[in-house]
Amino acid sequence: MKFENQLLNFAKKTSKIYRSITGKGVRDVLKLIKRDIPNLKIKSVPSGFKAFDWIVPNEWHVEEAYILNKKGEKVIDFKKNNLHLVSYSTSVNKILSLKDLNKNLFSINKLPTAIPYVTSYYKKSWGFCLSHNQRKKLKDKSYKVKIKSNFIKGFLNYGEVYLPGKTKKEIFISTYICHPVMANNESSGPTITKFLTEWIQSKKRFYSYRIIFIPETIGSIVYLKKNLKIMKKNIIAGFNINCVGDNRSYSYLPSRNGNSISDKIAKHVLKWNNKKFIEYTWNERGSDERQYCSPGVDLPVVSLMRSKYGEYPEYHTSLDNFDRVVNAKGLLGGFKINKRAVEAIENNFYPVCKIPCEPKLSKYNLYNPQNKNNYAHLHKFKSSLTDSLYNVLSHCDGKNSLLEISEKILIPIWETYPIIEKLKNLNLIKISFKKLLKNDI
Amino acid sequence: MKFENQLLNFAKKTSKIYRSITGKGVRDVLKLIKRDIPNLKIKSVPSGFKAFDWIVPNEWHVEEAYILNKKGEKVIDFKKNNLHLVSYSTSVNKILSLKDLNKNLFSINKLPTAIPYVTSYYKKSWGFCLSHNQRKKLKDKSYKVKIKSNFIKGFLNYGEVYLPGKTKKEIFISTYICHPVMANNESSGPTITKFLTEWIQSKKRFYSYRIIFIPETIGSIVYLKKNLKIMKKNIIAGFNINCVGDNRSYSYLPSRNGNSISDKIAKHVLKWNNKKFIEYTWNERGSDERQYCSPGVDLPVVSLMRSKYGEYPEYHTSLDNFDRVVNAKGLLGGFKINKRAVEAIENNFYPVCKIPCEPKLSKYNLYNPQNKNNYAHLHKFKSSLTDSLYNVLSHCDGKNSLLEISEKILIPIWETYPIIEKLKNLNLIKISFKKLLKNDI
Amino acid sequence: MKFENQLLNFAKKTSKIYRSITGKGVRDVLKLIKRDIPNLKIKSVPSGFKAFDWIVPNEWHVEEAYILNKKGEKVIDFKKNNLHLVSYSTSVNKILSLKDLNKNLFSINKLPTAIPYVTSYYKKSWGFCLSHNQRKKLKDKSYKVKIKSNFIKGFLNYGEVYLPGKTKKEIFISTYICHPVMANNESSGPTITKFLTEWIQSKKRFYSYRIIFIPETIGSIVYLKKNLKIMKKNIIAGFNINCVGDNRSYSYLPSRNGNSISDKIAKHVLKWNNKKFIEYTWNERGSDERQYCSPGVDLPVVSLMRSKYGEYPEYHTSLDNFDRVVNAKGLLGGFKINKRAVEAIENNFYPVCKIPCEPKLSKYNLYNPQNKNNYAHLHKFKSSLTDSLYNVLSHCDGKNSLLEISEKILIPIWETYPIIEKLKNLNLIKISFKKLLKNDI
Repeated sequence: MKFENQLLNFAKKTSKIYRSITGKGVRDVLKLIKRDIPNLKIKSVPSGFKAFDWIVPNEWHVEEAYILNKKGEKVIDFKKNNLHLVSYSTSVNKILSLKDLNKNLFSINKLPTAIPYVTSYYKKSWGFCLSHNQRKKLKDKSYKVKIKSNFIKGFLNYGEVYLPGKTKKEIFISTYICHPVMANNESSGPTITKFLTEWIQSKKRFYSYRIIFIPETIGSIVYLKKNLKIMKKNIIAGFNINCVGDNRSYSYLPSRNGNSISDKIAKHVLKWNNKKFIEYTWNERGSDERQYCSPGVDLPVVSLMRSKYGEYPEYHTSLDNFDRVVNAKGLLGGFKINKRAVEAIENNFYPVCKIPCEPKLSKYNLYNPQNKNNYAHLHKFKSSLTDSLYNVLSHCDGKNSLLEISEKILIPIWETYPIIEKLKNLNLIKISFKKLLKNDI
Repeated sequence: MKFENQLLNFAKKTSKIYRSITGKGVRDVLKLIKRDIPNLKIKSVPSGFKAFDWIVPNEWHVEEAYILNKKGEKVIDFKKNNLHLVSYSTSVNKILSLKDLNKNLFSINKLPTAIPYVTSYYKKSWGFCLSHNQRKKLKDKSYKVKIKSNFIKGFLNYGEVYLPGKTKKEIFISTYICHPVMANNESSGPTITKFLTEWIQSKKRFYSYRIIFIPETIGSIVYLKKNLKIMKKNIIAGFNINCVGDNRSYSYLPSRNGNSISDKIAKHVLKWNNKKFIEYTWNERGSDERQYCSPGVDLPVVSLMRSKYGEYPEYHTSLDNFDRVVNAKGLLGGFKINKRAVEAIENNFYPVCKIPCEPKLSKYNLYNPQNKNNYAHLHKFKSSLTDSLYNVLSHCDGKNSLLEISEKILIPIWETYPIIEKLKNLNLIKISFKKLLKNDI
Repeated sequence: MKFENQLLNFAKKTSKIYRSITGKGVRDVLKLIKRDIPNLKIKSVPSGFKAFDWIVPNEWHVEEAYILNKKGEKVIDFKKNNLHLVSYSTSVNKILSLKDLNKNLFSINKLPTAIPYVTSYYKKSWGFCLSHNQRKKLKDKSYKVKIKSNFIKGFLNYGEVYLPGKTKKEIFISTYICHPVMANNESSGPTITKFLTEWIQSKKRFYSYRIIFIPETIGSIVYLKKNLKIMKKNIIAGFNINCVGDNRSYSYLPSRNGNSISDKIAKHVLKWNNKKFIEYTWNERGSDERQYCSPGVDLPVVSLMRSKYGEYPEYHTSLDNFDRVVNAKGLLGGFKINKRAVEAIENNFYPVCKIPCEPKLSKYNLYNPQNKNNYAHLHKFKSSLTDSLYNVLSHCDGKNSLLEISEKILIPIWETYPIIEKLKNLNLIKISFKKLLKNDI
């Protein structure tokens, strides 16, 4: 199967598992991922666990949830679309006037076919979400509302993969698995992260990797509570992977300080991938970077996204689906930018030329003296490998990282990898990670 | 009386006291201010006092000064308008041909109704200033000129208010009281400074304040001669208050280095007050910052002005008056920008969040989870206090001053004061001035 | 003779000496320069000398080189135009079919009257260069080709002038003398460098000067091999002088890091000389800065040029001549910018005002108080020396170099020299080179 179709299939599979921030759904998603990544560790903290200002809520389980009209017909049924029920709704079993029912209904006037996604994790409440068209059909004077849900002391679960490299310094990758049903936000994130993990696993690594699959917000806060010290010590770059599935735009959300190596790499990759990418600011944040970059945590975590949460019309509704929003091409683009960012950090060493002055390139069959230096300009002849090689080499002073060199000579960093390979093979340069560890961390 | 009318009344009162760089007029202005600010100290240095490259000149007193035509009529009389006489004119009593008289007359062709303001403090000389229309009427062959003025060993006077705060570090405010008659330049400066002093006096202070009312140039040089060491040690920000009375524009003149905390605050305040403010450069300086920022002095002194000296047509003429240039609204604007600048420096501490990760805002009634995170974007709902609070909090890492936070989250610093108050009351942050004293001084 | 005509005459004389990277021609050019600069030292390294990755090639001498047609007529003859022969061509003596001959012919379709300049220093080869019009006339089936050239163990020569100053810190100037015949690239460089040397020799110097006349590439590499350590220790600024002869544009090629004092001065001089100068990037380098700024060498060498090599149509052809490209005006401009750059570095000290506050300028006859401070603005009166003097003085805090002051007050640095002279004579400032040596080196 083509790689992009593998991405699409897995995303669809993920979206079918109904889940919230705790409970069976989360565990099922983690098990699905563990099938492909056996060294994923599924971890848990109990309900009531205190994490900084937060407390892990009870597990929430739904047995049934529907609304009956006068005739006893289910006009809204959680089984038909899981989004119909406000997440963490309490049990209800009563007859309500339409007027009273309306206080607990959520629909969107402007998107009359969309069922909105609403949650109430920390405030006891109940509610149904429905399309505005459905809502307009509710004309009976009263309706019977039935929700049977249980709150039980259980666990908050998350998955963790640790991939050791040559250094203990880590690249951190996080995605969230609590958003049910929807495609871009968020079946795409766990999907891309799973495939990225497999790719990283298959490569030699300079850095170690900490990759986690968590419920958003409470999950990242719990994870930080348990791992803050080691994370602050080791993490040199981080990515919060989400909204990576549609094919409409590319975008970037910075870390709070905006000038970490993650930020520099992200902007470089996105610029060379598609120069029209959207650069958001910290003021437009909304996902787990709120925790990872918070005062006292201060990790260098950024997001390389397709269309960002909150910025596309179908966001947090049933219309964020595989018909309308997410497709194989979109996922492939989302995979590529994040892969390139990881790869760029892996390769962002400081090359050092072994001799002063230019090497005599013709000795290495890299240079045609009759073309280059003379009337080449008249023919607009351009041996691009040689030119870029020349340019790369001219900056290999041990003070420029490969990223800085690429920025200076105006090519994407991935075009420098074969050049660096060639220069190493010719014994013209050596490479150093030491300076990187000193400078960018 | 409305506050702006109080400003206007005081400015008018000030303008009626005729004064130059020394003498009774200066003392009378200081006494007028001391009526409202009893702890103003009126100080003096004697004529002949040496201050760096300068020597305090004798006091200059005028008894009478006029020009008589053939018929013995006073065609120009100092008593009618004090600007008619060149300041520091020597005594004269002679009949002159019109041709010779003309050498000592000053008028402005392009502003035919304006009497210019001319001084000759350090070069013995005499002259009359008159409107060009008046000048054109001088058709007699000769005129009698009479000036009776005295130069006596006396004093140069200035006023000083010191308001202690929690720290000895000082905010410095200077204005000048030597310009006679005219409204914007300069009855507005002493007026705004007087009212600012009263306001500062009424508030709890972190910083101490050194506020002076001086003759321009010679006064600031004398003051520096006497206080340079302590000023260099303690002053962390400074404002030269002048040209703060008309309602036509807002403007800013930087300190010499242009990047002091005074400069940053001034630009922030003016930008959020009125985005079209004029930013002058050091090359366009012309007032006491020439001394305060001079090599060897290097104080961080800036000006937040309305229409700057030299930049409006009525400048340094009789047309700079309360009919044409200065009004209550203009003065109120001048007061507000300088007050906001002072207030911003007082509040520019480094807030520190007390816990890692976001606090659980719903615990504090600051957050409606069903609105914010979900389909709020569809309704363009914006709880601006909550949003700004969220944004402020996200930067409270002890490394960002309140000014830096405001710049990052794109709101004026004064909108953060109630937020900081709320966050302190909720015990979510603590504030630190230590870093400020280390960083910005 | 007018100075610009002296420049033109010398450039023409230089262009007539046929030369390559080694041999008699180089020595003859050096002797021509030594006539005017007796302390030029002519130095040599032997063929086979190893310099980093390079080896000095044998000397190349041509006795004759021509192509005969069927009738025995010389259709191409090296004696008619030295560019006809590919530099470092090996000996040949055979009859070739036109088809085979064509493989060794070089002409330019788009410039049908131009003979291109082609070299093959390090790859044994031979060839003829001719205009495309000449080439089209070659219609015989076969031609006799005769090249008689010798490769002998000899020397690579270069010239060196060392001019001591008050400090051992050096300004470095390099130009190349290997390009035959052509005018802008490169008879202009040695010409301007010769005259610049004479001018520097005639002046009191703060810095010492290292000035070299070398063959391009191999010459600079050899020179660096022999002098790298002392150069790295002493050189604070450097200029590679080339392409300084036409009157069509001004341009600048930066050092690799782009922020050395050479770069700052170059941009300042060119900006004030002609605001439309072209600023190239390191990516567009092509001359000896490739060696001087290479990793491990890292000298602050820039080029202030007229039309840059590779950027004008006649480049590296017989059309780069004194009819079409180079003229007296062009050379004079090339001389002026490089002289001004050298002069600016010599003068780029840190002036320090001797007293705090403004000096009382009227004491020094520098100030007309009745004009300046008062209604001058109405007359748009501007005493520019006084104003600039005032502005210069306001920045003499010992932290601003003269270049920085000039940039701040928006005048070319050369306009500050008489002001500094005046201020020194009035004993208002002292000057310091110490900080310069500390800061910019």
